[in-house]
Amino acid sequence: MPGLTLADARAALDAGLAEADAIGQPMNVAVVDDGGHLLAFARQDGAIRASIDIAQRKARTSILMEAPTAALMPLVQPGAELYGLEQTAGGMVVFGGGVPVHRDGVLVGAIGVSAGSAEQDVQVAEAAAAAVSTPVPA
Amino acid sequence: MPGLTLADARAALDAGLAEADAIGQPMNVAVVDDGGHLLAFARQDGAIRASIDIAQRKARTSILMEAPTAALMPLVQPGAELYGLEQTAGGMVVFGGGVPVHRDGVLVGAIGVSAGSAEQDVQVAEAAAAAVSTPVPA
Amino acid sequence: MPGLTLADARAALDAGLAEADAIGQPMNVAVVDDGGHLLAFARQDGAIRASIDIAQRKARTSILMEAPTAALMPLVQPGAELYGLEQTAGGMVVFGGGVPVHRDGVLVGAIGVSAGSAEQDVQVAEAAAAAVSTPVPA
Amino acid sequence: MPGLTLADARAALDAGLAEADAIGQPMNVAVVDDGGHLLAFARQDGAIRASIDIAQRKARTSILMEAPTAALMPLVQPGAELYGLEQTAGGMVVFGGGVPVHRDGVLVGAIGVSAGSAEQDVQVAEAAAAAVSTPVPA
Repeated sequence: MPGLTLADARAALDAGLAEADAIGQPMNVAVVDDGGHLLAFARQDGAIRASIDIAQRKARTSILMEAPTAALMPLVQPGAELYGLEQTAGGMVVFGGGVPVHRDGVLVGAIGVSAGSAEQDVQVAEAAAAAVSTPVPA
Repeated sequence: MPGLTLADARAALDAGLAEADAIGQPMNVAVVDDGGHLLAFARQDGAIRASIDIAQRKARTSILMEAPTAALMPLVQPGAELYGLEQTAGGMVVFGGGVPVHRDGVLVGAIGVSAGSAEQDVQVAEAAAAAVSTPVPA
Repeated sequence: MPGLTLADARAALDAGLAEADAIGQPMNVAVVDDGGHLLAFARQDGAIRASIDIAQRKARTSILMEAPTAALMPLVQPGAELYGLEQTAGGMVVFGGGVPVHRDGVLVGAIGVSAGSAEQDVQVAEAAAAAVSTPVPA
Repeated sequence: MPGLTLADARAALDAGLAEADAIGQPMNVAVVDDGGHLLAFARQDGAIRASIDIAQRKARTSILMEAPTAALMPLVQPGAELYGLEQTAGGMVVFGGGVPVHRDGVLVGAIGVSAGSAEQDVQVAEAAAAAVSTPVPA
């Protein structure tokens, strides 16, 4: 069960694209494996092209940090503990839209979404992740 | 009509250079196509050379973000929604001087200007863009 | 008609993935727009991960050179006219698997495929491109 | 007299563009100063976009090596003295189309041209350089 196949990645992608359609905000959606390597990607008509990189980078950041990118935001502010973090590891993204995918409590991949507001990006990424995540075993 | 030719790009460039002359600030002016690829460039005598890259990067940022670079400044401040954005997409510029060019409501290119104050850069970029833009159709 | 939508890009992608299935070689398939910017991507189960980058780079090379990447191979050999070309323009790929997409005689995008032999990559890229290309008008 | 102004650079550029028109091959033409920094650039309608970088890189190579790029080709072949040179100094171009500009025997800039055959690129670059060079003083 753990380990994302392309079929899984496309299921996540399509769930994200459907959520983007539902909120009326064209998005870039990326799905990466547990090593942070791209599995599937789509850019919807009208989504800005800066977000091609940002979406992939958010997904990769979630793998490298094992956390949603939104959780990093307070940590990297001036005066905070990880100030400058975004400059490391090849360049990370510290605003919302990257969400890890867990199965049976194991990190198996991540979703990155970009082109809307950070709140919209998170919403779409969570919808994509939910489509292929399983709850932590009880 | 949409799509910038070299003749269009040089018309925009010359309008920008004339504006720079008018305000007495030597400038670097870049014109890119709708994919962010350089069409025309000029560096005026006395303009700093860091701005060779900055001008081109501003133009490319305007394409990738589909916005003037000046609009990004508040969004990337500490505590703001897109903090760290400038590190993505190959390195973007988030201060003024990048301006999109639209024709018939379509994004067809962008201007990037650098070497003066941000305010001067914007003024010159807007003059360049105005020379080849058309209003949104009514 | 010119200009690839996401629907077009996914039709091309799916045609490529079907061809890869038919020859039994898992592939990475990328579709880019006329500016070389990514539209859609998929990595099949078992395809090597170096090809994530190679597939995208082949597609981008086809846009920048306006040619199939296989056509570049003889030109960049020792003693040939464009020796060292692959080092330019951010790093281009000069072996087969990048194929331009034309519509009504206009370059509207490109396909990049990687993970098999160059011959297999070309076969899959051509199948993907054929799904969304139109013949040059008579 | 030594030192290229923007007026000089545009005179060189226009001479190059006129030569490109004369041979019917759309070109990318770049003019750099004695430090290899861009002064002026134009991409003609129909010229491939890979050559945006190649033209600038040829001009810069001519400054760094103080030689036409065509002169480097035999030196970098397998077994030859400077094999691998093109990987150094940020990436140099070792095929024809980069030409130094001298005034009164002093290297003051360089031209880089790309998009045609190497022979055509050299022809256009030499036309551009000739427009602003002066002969070595007798």
